[in-house]
Amino acid sequence: MLKFYSFGPGANSLKPMLALYEKQLAFEHKLLNPRTFEHHSEWYKAINPRGQVPALDDDGRIVTESTVICEYLEDAHPTAVKLRPDDHFDRAQMRIWTKWVDEYFCWCVSTIGWHRHVSKMVEHLSDAEFEEVVARIPVAEQQVKWRRAREGFPQDLLDEEMRKIGSSVRKLDDHLADNEWLAGGMYTLADICNFSIANGMERGFAEFVNREDTPHLLRWIEQINARANVQRVFANVPREF
Amino acid sequence: MLKFYSFGPGANSLKPMLALYEKQLAFEHKLLNPRTFEHHSEWYKAINPRGQVPALDDDGRIVTESTVICEYLEDAHPTAVKLRPDDHFDRAQMRIWTKWVDEYFCWCVSTIGWHRHVSKMVEHLSDAEFEEVVARIPVAEQQVKWRRAREGFPQDLLDEEMRKIGSSVRKLDDHLADNEWLAGGMYTLADICNFSIANGMERGFAEFVNREDTPHLLRWIEQINARANVQRVFANVPREF
Repeated sequence: MLKFYSFGPGANSLKPMLALYEKQLAFEHKLLNPRTFEHHSEWYKAINPRGQVPALDDDGRIVTESTVICEYLEDAHPTAVKLRPDDHFDRAQMRIWTKWVDEYFCWCVSTIGWHRHVSKMVEHLSDAEFEEVVARIPVAEQQVKWRRAREGFPQDLLDEEMRKIGSSVRKLDDHLADNEWLAGGMYTLADICNFSIANGMERGFAEFVNREDTPHLLRWIEQINARANVQRVFANVPREF
Repeated sequence: MLKFYSFGPGANSLKPMLALYEKQLAFEHKLLNPRTFEHHSEWYKAINPRGQVPALDDDGRIVTESTVICEYLEDAHPTAVKLRPDDHFDRAQMRIWTKWVDEYFCWCVSTIGWHRHVSKMVEHLSDAEFEEVVARIPVAEQQVKWRRAREGFPQDLLDEEMRKIGSSVRKLDDHLADNEWLAGGMYTLADICNFSIANGMERGFAEFVNREDTPHLLRWIEQINARANVQRVFANVPREF
């Protein structure tokens, strides 16, 4: 039996969620509450010692890292619905796009998301309460990120991340101007992983993602939102923010 | 016919090179000269428009990005020698390690490498000559990196990258204390991709990688260097630095 641990339908949590729904695999869904820092709780760190979502429990074997989980589902749970091209070259193109999300696109969007949302989650805490929260975080790098979110990210870092977001959506729009999907002429993990970051940017980042500047990116976002199995995700899984 | 474009046997160029040799695939090897910025030349940009090595030409189809090329070789050119575990869970663990190199480990080492080596490649150029070099670089992000290498990276960035290098080699050593190989109990792309960055760090980063602090990491580096197909790489392909 598959058991999937995640936050709501956004960012890294959304990637394997879309794959699970698209493949129509049966799974138990355990939603964690980011506002109570449930991913840093002892019960969850017993599942993923890094205290991060998403994680997939496949009969007791825990697979972590959203993009890796997506490929794992294709490897270990093949279905009639394929989310990876069979052609090896096309599959390589798919991986260039999923790698790019993990290395570049998700980081700049994530920093701005932390600046806007996570900082609000910790601003009402006293210093002592905040230190208790941080002490429960198992990964040192993540402790640094939480401290930065509370102190406020430096403005030059926020400016640089916004520049990267602008360059990212430009790259996506340029590619989608000539291609219905990102790789292999079909809906793949490349679309799933990029959509999970890009969906909703027409609201949060309207200065970059709008009808005039990125019509092809918006066409693709709408096309994915119109898929029955994507609509099932958003109907079933409550959003947090 | 496979044709492989790369720099010498280090960093990202080394990853697919090790895979090609380990699998004993026949290929034509075209070595580019980084000192003359050959990867930014028109002839090479006709092959990889991003002006980056490595790249693999497989009967006219160009595959780029070192980790993606490694997986492509496993997909498209299966051999008796397998560099990916068959077990799906083990394969996922392998991908967590190759993803970590691309997202984290290679970046901090790369910045210090640029600081030490690339800055020397451009310091003798006049401003006008340097601008000519930069103008030939097709990726805006890379232009930024070349400018930074010439101007000098800020000290706080260099300090932060050194901290990340320290934490990276600690992570590797801790894992290798209990495991012969990084994933799946066998020599895989996880080892190849991490070794390509870690090899030689006992010289360049002796404060972090040494017999006392990282004995397991050194054992693993030596174990890989002792492989016949790894020795063939270093015997056949000249080092640049």
